[in-house]
Amino acid sequence: MSDNNIIDILICNGILVAMEETIPPFKDGVVAVKEDKIIFAGSKKDMPAYKPIRIIDAKRGIIMPGLINTHTHAPMTCFRGLADDLPLMTWLNDYIFPAEANLNPDMVYKGSLLACAEMIMSGTTCFCDMYIFEDFVAKAAKQAGIRSLVGEGLFDFDSPNYGPLEKGYDYTKMLAEKWKDDDLINIAVMPHSPYLCAPDLLKTALLISEKYQLPLVIHLSETKNEVSMIKKKYGATPVKHLENIGALSSSLVACHAVVLTQDDIPLLQKYNVKVSHNPQSNMKLASGIAPVPKLINSGIHVGLGTDGCASNNDLDMFSEMDSAAKLHKVKELDPTVLDALTVLKMATINGAFVLGMEEKTGSIKPGKKADIIIVDINKPHLTPMYNPYSHLVYSVKGSDVTTSIINGKIVMENRKLLTLDIAKIMADVNDIAKKIKSKHDKI
Amino acid sequence: MSDNNIIDILICNGILVAMEETIPPFKDGVVAVKEDKIIFAGSKKDMPAYKPIRIIDAKRGIIMPGLINTHTHAPMTCFRGLADDLPLMTWLNDYIFPAEANLNPDMVYKGSLLACAEMIMSGTTCFCDMYIFEDFVAKAAKQAGIRSLVGEGLFDFDSPNYGPLEKGYDYTKMLAEKWKDDDLINIAVMPHSPYLCAPDLLKTALLISEKYQLPLVIHLSETKNEVSMIKKKYGATPVKHLENIGALSSSLVACHAVVLTQDDIPLLQKYNVKVSHNPQSNMKLASGIAPVPKLINSGIHVGLGTDGCASNNDLDMFSEMDSAAKLHKVKELDPTVLDALTVLKMATINGAFVLGMEEKTGSIKPGKKADIIIVDINKPHLTPMYNPYSHLVYSVKGSDVTTSIINGKIVMENRKLLTLDIAKIMADVNDIAKKIKSKHDKI
Repeated sequence: MSDNNIIDILICNGILVAMEETIPPFKDGVVAVKEDKIIFAGSKKDMPAYKPIRIIDAKRGIIMPGLINTHTHAPMTCFRGLADDLPLMTWLNDYIFPAEANLNPDMVYKGSLLACAEMIMSGTTCFCDMYIFEDFVAKAAKQAGIRSLVGEGLFDFDSPNYGPLEKGYDYTKMLAEKWKDDDLINIAVMPHSPYLCAPDLLKTALLISEKYQLPLVIHLSETKNEVSMIKKKYGATPVKHLENIGALSSSLVACHAVVLTQDDIPLLQKYNVKVSHNPQSNMKLASGIAPVPKLINSGIHVGLGTDGCASNNDLDMFSEMDSAAKLHKVKELDPTVLDALTVLKMATINGAFVLGMEEKTGSIKPGKKADIIIVDINKPHLTPMYNPYSHLVYSVKGSDVTTSIINGKIVMENRKLLTLDIAKIMADVNDIAKKIKSKHDKI
Repeated sequence: MSDNNIIDILICNGILVAMEETIPPFKDGVVAVKEDKIIFAGSKKDMPAYKPIRIIDAKRGIIMPGLINTHTHAPMTCFRGLADDLPLMTWLNDYIFPAEANLNPDMVYKGSLLACAEMIMSGTTCFCDMYIFEDFVAKAAKQAGIRSLVGEGLFDFDSPNYGPLEKGYDYTKMLAEKWKDDDLINIAVMPHSPYLCAPDLLKTALLISEKYQLPLVIHLSETKNEVSMIKKKYGATPVKHLENIGALSSSLVACHAVVLTQDDIPLLQKYNVKVSHNPQSNMKLASGIAPVPKLINSGIHVGLGTDGCASNNDLDMFSEMDSAAKLHKVKELDPTVLDALTVLKMATINGAFVLGMEEKTGSIKPGKKADIIIVDINKPHLTPMYNPYSHLVYSVKGSDVTTSIINGKIVMENRKLLTLDIAKIMADVNDIAKKIKSKHDKI
């Protein structure tokens, strides 16, 4: 046996759900990992004779690609459940904005560590994040060993991080330079939204994204109010307004996309814009229901996202899948809408397309980075199993994920997080929450 | 210290969420249990000096009443994920009905054991069940040590259990006699629905329920099709049709109640009819969205239910609460609708009202039966905690329940089920599923 047969990890004895059309589900599935990459995925009987340094027994569970959370605000774990069931403006003005006014790098870093712990422990291996002090989100994600696309939120008013906007551009460029060769951290330009970003800001953001070849991520058409406001101000829907500015492109990730006119969808399609769908946040904040079946039928790539913890209130992509599949059925009064496989694609391979990472992650395929999770199905609520796709969307919970490998590195094994000290992270965020409570008499 | 101070269980060191207006949440909560009853619930500093035989340390978790699942079909765990994302009639005629044609007591018993395991492990301590061979559901529930209200499904056509309808009445009477003195099992009369039960059946069911003083449980106004069919056949909505028959009363539990006219709600209110709301099933089968805020505002008791595993696909009441809270917000486009406390009441004390068990269970109150769960909140996805109600509805998962006490007996401790052999139960249901697969070529 030559040295070429030495591999780092062999995952065996599982049901392989690769999310690749050329690799159907296998009952005797195996995946071989060498360094950071997948080198084989398929049936055990077709596997070359490897010499694995490490064997992971999936114990008849499901071996699948890690989930991709296409939209969140990781540090907002600090505000989980701080205020719920309130009118949007009360929620923002009386709770979220005052709490965020005291933001600092320490809070962002610790809140992000907690978010990374929660995400890995519920099966997410890649996330897209917009917030402030985003270099500290990147630092936390790097430490956790989770893949990410991060970007500093840009808006017209001063930021607790960079002060006036000009420095925000510099901060984004700094992020792009600092992390450009990193194997886990990717940078995007992130103007907050058409209602918090004047056209000049959007144009500058676009120039930076083009110069550095970075994705552009924005909140778009999230609420009726936003659409009215933009129409009044610019005489166009938010989508059309972005076209006028020249910002619609295949590098644009539109988060939410709830309130769309019938002219907006062909525009998104024409420019191959990507969409992040956040059903639980849209439900909880009563924003509305995005026309996801129409977007998908138009050929638009739609991923799933949890949004931040203040409007969900967790980062669990399994529960997000369940909500997505059920919400659109009842909206359309059609039980065939958004079937389990479609929703699972949104949370994996199509999430990768949304973030421009489809060559790297989102499915189990030789040549891709090894971003893999194992789901234990030997549990009462997962017995029996007729169909793995149905199980993953309608029955599996985040806590059923036992093992997570990201970029070829085992970051969780048998539910033990190997990269972070969870007890310390929870204690740190509990301290932050105590300070938030003491400062805000409404809480 | 007198013998009167000897108690069986003292639960201490937890955050008490009693779901009783006279008992606010306590940070230093304790609950004392003697035999099958709660004898004290409140702050540790107000607690009499007890001599507990057994002390359970809640480890700063939440001590709360067990959840009440007001509508399910326990044996349908055997069909979990057997068929999804299909038109209703394809789902029923090509999958569910053929699978159910082979029903037998063994399947019902084993499927129910699995359901009980899943329910206890996700925080449910009481459930209401309609199916066939229901004596075997009762047997399984008794063995699991879970409280229940069970009843044999009655319909116009022959049943695999009792054959012609006349014997179905006898079977129901047999159940009532057999279980009348049981401390856990309660019996109801359960005509399936106005569309599967002719008026004579409904009238006979009503007589039996009056004679034996049993609740009457029925599927009511679940879909548009049902309402059209009943209107065509009887010239009235299903609710009005039941009034005409004389079946509307405070003993009636109407399951689903999705498609209601504006005249139906005052009728339900007038007769103090109880409603079981099943949001996830109604979403997945695309039945519609029940007008729950209106029902609650009319003073109608509304509980929550998961429905069976073939249309959900689990029995997790925590996830059901999350869906209920979010679904009605987005339907009404109002984030204040169905706040966390309201939803938590639906899953506890109001569920008890729905099943006519409000004197017995649904809250932690001296004199009530000890149906108590402990939730571990020392986890990343439950950090930090600002508000326990919000946490329980929006963040806690069924798998966070560590300990369950039903009728004063510890049935689960540190996530170990003490009453059932889970491995055997799962193996049994996997065998059943294999037979179902081999008989149905569509699966």
